[in-house]
Amino acid sequence: MSKGRMEAFSDGVVAILITIMVLELTVPEEATLSALRPLIPTLMSYILSFVNLGIYWNNHHHLLQAVKRVDGRILWANMHLLFWLSLIPFTTSWMGEHPSTAWPAALYGVVLLFAAGAYRLLTLALIAQNGRDSILATSIGRDFKGWISITFYLLAIPAAFLNPWISYGLYALVAIIWLIPDRRIEKNLVRE
Amino acid sequence: MSKGRMEAFSDGVVAILITIMVLELTVPEEATLSALRPLIPTLMSYILSFVNLGIYWNNHHHLLQAVKRVDGRILWANMHLLFWLSLIPFTTSWMGEHPSTAWPAALYGVVLLFAAGAYRLLTLALIAQNGRDSILATSIGRDFKGWISITFYLLAIPAAFLNPWISYGLYALVAIIWLIPDRRIEKNLVRE
Amino acid sequence: MSKGRMEAFSDGVVAILITIMVLELTVPEEATLSALRPLIPTLMSYILSFVNLGIYWNNHHHLLQAVKRVDGRILWANMHLLFWLSLIPFTTSWMGEHPSTAWPAALYGVVLLFAAGAYRLLTLALIAQNGRDSILATSIGRDFKGWISITFYLLAIPAAFLNPWISYGLYALVAIIWLIPDRRIEKNLVRE
Amino acid sequence: MSKGRMEAFSDGVVAILITIMVLELTVPEEATLSALRPLIPTLMSYILSFVNLGIYWNNHHHLLQAVKRVDGRILWANMHLLFWLSLIPFTTSWMGEHPSTAWPAALYGVVLLFAAGAYRLLTLALIAQNGRDSILATSIGRDFKGWISITFYLLAIPAAFLNPWISYGLYALVAIIWLIPDRRIEKNLVRE
Repeated sequence: MSKGRMEAFSDGVVAILITIMVLELTVPEEATLSALRPLIPTLMSYILSFVNLGIYWNNHHHLLQAVKRVDGRILWANMHLLFWLSLIPFTTSWMGEHPSTAWPAALYGVVLLFAAGAYRLLTLALIAQNGRDSILATSIGRDFKGWISITFYLLAIPAAFLNPWISYGLYALVAIIWLIPDRRIEKNLVRE
Repeated sequence: MSKGRMEAFSDGVVAILITIMVLELTVPEEATLSALRPLIPTLMSYILSFVNLGIYWNNHHHLLQAVKRVDGRILWANMHLLFWLSLIPFTTSWMGEHPSTAWPAALYGVVLLFAAGAYRLLTLALIAQNGRDSILATSIGRDFKGWISITFYLLAIPAAFLNPWISYGLYALVAIIWLIPDRRIEKNLVRE
Repeated sequence: MSKGRMEAFSDGVVAILITIMVLELTVPEEATLSALRPLIPTLMSYILSFVNLGIYWNNHHHLLQAVKRVDGRILWANMHLLFWLSLIPFTTSWMGEHPSTAWPAALYGVVLLFAAGAYRLLTLALIAQNGRDSILATSIGRDFKGWISITFYLLAIPAAFLNPWISYGLYALVAIIWLIPDRRIEKNLVRE
Repeated sequence: MSKGRMEAFSDGVVAILITIMVLELTVPEEATLSALRPLIPTLMSYILSFVNLGIYWNNHHHLLQAVKRVDGRILWANMHLLFWLSLIPFTTSWMGEHPSTAWPAALYGVVLLFAAGAYRLLTLALIAQNGRDSILATSIGRDFKGWISITFYLLAIPAAFLNPWISYGLYALVAIIWLIPDRRIEKNLVRE
């Protein structure tokens, strides 16, 4: 089975998720600069989620670069990832409306944690189909960034009950780590 | 006529349908855990519909895998399927808001029943164009899963007036049956 | 310049337009059958617009089938068509909420009229680039259906002020005429 | 890395942005012609933003025409452009609701200015990867239109506090300048 439609479908879902988050930026009643101020936390959480979804899209792009075939299990592993990503707009706007409260900050981490787990499962399903010796398998290797993300999310969730800003710092840190592009697959593709 | 644009258009519509259902998860006013509790039925019905739309997308993908050409009749059979799928977000959120009432549970089944019928019509239009002896025709065969879905929906609709939870159980059962991937077309494609 | 991205972009816009019209089907407060009754006009106008957008997508698909190259003028003629199509959800829901009033029924016709004109301009831009003797030009010929649509819309707009149901009848009639698939381009492509 | 998915993803995001702006055209309560009048500024700002997004999509299409490979830096430069474009619906509807006030008109210019800057950065990232002597680099040349846009936006932002209609005039002027299609890349592609 070709991977084209799975890529197109995932692109569509991520493009829509990124865009509907913008709908949460409700247009203020008044036309003053100060009327924009209450939107700042919503804008900040939008930027964080825009970057996170951008990272997922980018990594998804890299991941499937090294893949030739997909099967039913991979299609569902991909759907499962899209499910967790689809909850990001909800948690983003809850967090944006209550920036200094514990539960929204913690729930945001829970959704990111499950999305990271779903991405890991998708990677495993792809490796299972393409072989332990494929470019993909050797490129992913020990997946340092993946494990550090999961660790940071696991720290950020309870930390929200101390102070949600610790969680935000950890979420931002994970995003920054991923923004440094993942050259492993690119390098190995070139090397072959 | 090539099938590429029909696939791309269907992917777009299903991606949007899956994503706008998330908009029904209205962000709670308060930032407490208990404020999330009333959202549980909406979340459950979202998950059910996410899986159902995922199944349709997966099957659509498999179905068109074995197809080379499309014509005007197939384009409209596909549009007709998309029409019934497009009503899923509406019935999903009605059901999510009234989880213990008969009518929303019954209407959900009616929409799924017509979607299943539309999928059957699309299959017939594809077989008509590709020939009774095509890979597609022999792969579909008696379409056991298709008929079992239609039977279960026909049972679930009246059952909602006894107890909507019987209907939910039947809807979930149909989803589980389909989640076991449809290897018929894959096998026959390989066999040739 | 290749036509691929113009097709993909148009598919995306039409897929979204079709789907956001569903958001106008506001979920009723109560879970009774009678609570669905006020939605019937909205559902009917949704079906009409779903079919109309489906016809445009289908015809667009056929039209570009016979085209090899696109240029800047064609891209903008296409954008112009998408602009008028993008107003369909607005007029659809205004009409659905006031089914027995003149203005919404008339405005629906105005938008359809301009969309039909924009489609005609796109056809002319395509013929201009592909040559008067191209498959496209000979296939379109006198464009009987296109002119009949424009005539019927011109009748339906003033008729709304007599009785909006005359307009609805004319809109439905145009849709039915188009649902009979446009085999002209298909035939000529095969003939060559 | 192939450019296909980056194009598809950008097409998806721009298609959704263009379409969700239509949701701001809230359907009037009453079914009279005069009930449409308050929507005129919203419609005008919708048209302006539709054209602006159309220009970005068109230019993006032209820009990537001359490009063969993309890398991680280009993917993020593209994401950055999409981020600024994603704020257009918000500023469009704020401006549409307060057409004679300074701040919304100024903010609209700020978002357009950053989008123009992001487009410039994307161009530089593409030239950096494809070489200073590539078709792309020689086609872009001094980028007269790009600099005139940035200059006009820089004038329009403070001018909004004199009179927002000066800003609107400047925004419209920039759009008109771009509507004259950018034949530089097309010509150079043909010349080679």
